[in-house]
Amino acid sequence: MTALELQGKAAKEAERVLSAAGTEQKNAALEAIAAALLARQADILAANGLDVAAGRENGLREALIDRLTLTEKRIADMAEGVRQVAAFPDPTGVVEKMEKRPNGLIIGKKRVSLGVIGIIYEARPNVTVDAATLCLKAGNAVILRGGKEAFHSNNVLCTLMQDAVESVGLPRACVSLVQDTTRQSANELMTLTGYLDVLIPRGGAGLIRAVVENAKVPVIETGVGNCHVYVDAEADLAMAAAIIENAKCSRPSVCNAAETLLVHRTVAERFLPVAAAELKKSNVELRGCPETCAILPEAVPATEEDWDTEYGDYILAVKVVGSAEEAIGHIAAHGSGHSEAIVTTNYFTAQHFLDAVDAAAVYVNASTRFTDGSEFGLGAEIGISTQKMHARGPMGINELTSCKYIIYGEGQVR
Amino acid sequence: MTALELQGKAAKEAERVLSAAGTEQKNAALEAIAAALLARQADILAANGLDVAAGRENGLREALIDRLTLTEKRIADMAEGVRQVAAFPDPTGVVEKMEKRPNGLIIGKKRVSLGVIGIIYEARPNVTVDAATLCLKAGNAVILRGGKEAFHSNNVLCTLMQDAVESVGLPRACVSLVQDTTRQSANELMTLTGYLDVLIPRGGAGLIRAVVENAKVPVIETGVGNCHVYVDAEADLAMAAAIIENAKCSRPSVCNAAETLLVHRTVAERFLPVAAAELKKSNVELRGCPETCAILPEAVPATEEDWDTEYGDYILAVKVVGSAEEAIGHIAAHGSGHSEAIVTTNYFTAQHFLDAVDAAAVYVNASTRFTDGSEFGLGAEIGISTQKMHARGPMGINELTSCKYIIYGEGQVR
Repeated sequence: MTALELQGKAAKEAERVLSAAGTEQKNAALEAIAAALLARQADILAANGLDVAAGRENGLREALIDRLTLTEKRIADMAEGVRQVAAFPDPTGVVEKMEKRPNGLIIGKKRVSLGVIGIIYEARPNVTVDAATLCLKAGNAVILRGGKEAFHSNNVLCTLMQDAVESVGLPRACVSLVQDTTRQSANELMTLTGYLDVLIPRGGAGLIRAVVENAKVPVIETGVGNCHVYVDAEADLAMAAAIIENAKCSRPSVCNAAETLLVHRTVAERFLPVAAAELKKSNVELRGCPETCAILPEAVPATEEDWDTEYGDYILAVKVVGSAEEAIGHIAAHGSGHSEAIVTTNYFTAQHFLDAVDAAAVYVNASTRFTDGSEFGLGAEIGISTQKMHARGPMGINELTSCKYIIYGEGQVR
Repeated sequence: MTALELQGKAAKEAERVLSAAGTEQKNAALEAIAAALLARQADILAANGLDVAAGRENGLREALIDRLTLTEKRIADMAEGVRQVAAFPDPTGVVEKMEKRPNGLIIGKKRVSLGVIGIIYEARPNVTVDAATLCLKAGNAVILRGGKEAFHSNNVLCTLMQDAVESVGLPRACVSLVQDTTRQSANELMTLTGYLDVLIPRGGAGLIRAVVENAKVPVIETGVGNCHVYVDAEADLAMAAAIIENAKCSRPSVCNAAETLLVHRTVAERFLPVAAAELKKSNVELRGCPETCAILPEAVPATEEDWDTEYGDYILAVKVVGSAEEAIGHIAAHGSGHSEAIVTTNYFTAQHFLDAVDAAAVYVNASTRFTDGSEFGLGAEIGISTQKMHARGPMGINELTSCKYIIYGEGQVR
């Protein structure tokens, strides 16, 4: 057995104990984690300091250094997040429907934990705690495979969580960190059938693609967001300008940020200069279709590739379209099924857009930036699913469960 | 583009039309299919005759010839099944919860079709119609890849369904059959990313394993059933004998049939001869652990492999255990997560078994044979999922849907 297979086996065994644990014991584990985060703050900052120093030495770009860096405030936020998860209702154990069949069998559908969940992620150490505690609350063991850039931070955070779960009588292997951070270990995790019930990749398009391509275990695809805002012929143009500005500029690096603006031809000449003025405040680079470039001198010509790119940056592709139908077609051809918005005052166009656009979240007259577990009222989220199986959109704690049928009989045979 | 990629592309385009179709139009398509099954009975029987003749020539065993064979009665049953699907409520379009968030956004979670569903199956032509119509009702396009043994039958059935959907104004590509029945086409279907939203294999353990090993598209694993009946120390032994007889003998070839009997040591000497007498009526071969063989002279010694085998036949593995805990451990080590039963009069043992056994369906005092869509009140089923993601246990029409969030705004930005 390889090191990872042993880790998988231990997680599977731990999961049998954890899934049978009561809500009180699981909440006690989470409380212990929150307390340890605060108590061991100095250790965490010291380990994180090593990662940040190494990152700077290796020339990591500033945005990544920022994601990697922990501060007292960020640690306190993590602890607060863990306490919020403890306060959630336990999704497991709920019997969703139970009915007596004509033959007298009483059949109920009970929510249970998913099993062992693998998470592959990149340079954000807060994911280590956020993801693990959400999994634990739903009764799942978790195997974390973080990026090498955050290894020291992740290691101290994982050990702290192991100590905490052990302190309330649960197996340490409820949470574990893959110690090998080479590509080899990621590939091995993707094929750990028999141990992993589901693998969730959290990261950029390259990571997601690699996992979807190579995984033999069930995967929940997350996060790639090539999102559009379509400004209809009948639209409140001031509202439209505010929405595209927010969707692009409020946080360009995240998956629910807009990457392409589609504008109906009849309003393009009026709307585009107004939108461009808004976007200019954040120095957004505009890459336009020929019609856009004719209206906006500051726009550079877009290539075909631009329509398929998640910039994650202050860049926006802009295209003029002849109808809502053309916008919907463009989204179908280029969107990633994440978040799509229309700005319109027309009732029928709004309803048609909601029906016809195939994405996790479809908006009328609002920014795509709201696609998020807490904005949707789900509490913390483990990621945003862009696939249709199992879960779609922000995945909260309910999406980390499965079900089983329980059947009470009196000797029935068929 | 390969032939299968073109077929995938056509299905994807058809699905955009189909998912937007109203319930009335989908029901009209199903009615047209049911009518055509009856009207074209002679064509179907003629095509099926070719398959059956070829099967006999190729020495297909009798059980398979039986599965392959269509009769007037079976065609009428298929048509009746299609009409029942038409009568189901349409699962799509339902908004499961819709609430106003503090910022005024109205967010609803709407059931939508899954997309394009691939089904790989073996020699049963009725699956062609059962599976396709269930997919259609939920607004999904379907690509069928049946076994070569049933090719003529499948082809006439698929053409008939295409004519029917076309007759109500839906694209023919809503349903299509893969024309190549070599292993090559199955492998290509498993990797048809970008076109297939989910692949469901229906068949024996070998097929399921091949799909899980090779697929790059999301898969729902179905049907492998290594099911157990555990007879507790405190059990109504007459009830237990009736349950194991039913679980083993009522239809040994299906996935919810029992393969192993576990018996508590304190009742083994009393129970096993009674059970063996029941099972002898169907000439069941018993493969026992040493203790079983000491009690039952007719039992042959079981090997380690027997505990992991889905016989699908009149063979039963028998093992004496020292406790319910040992039975639960055996099931965890050897079960396939399908259906597991305990026979007991003890309340606490029953509740513990229900909690601790990790399977799609866990029974107290009833036969495992009830794991079935219609027995569970779900209507027709597309298969029985033995995985934990997306669906578990019998998958009815609801399991052939996904969801999307629809958000009504008034200009909200974040």
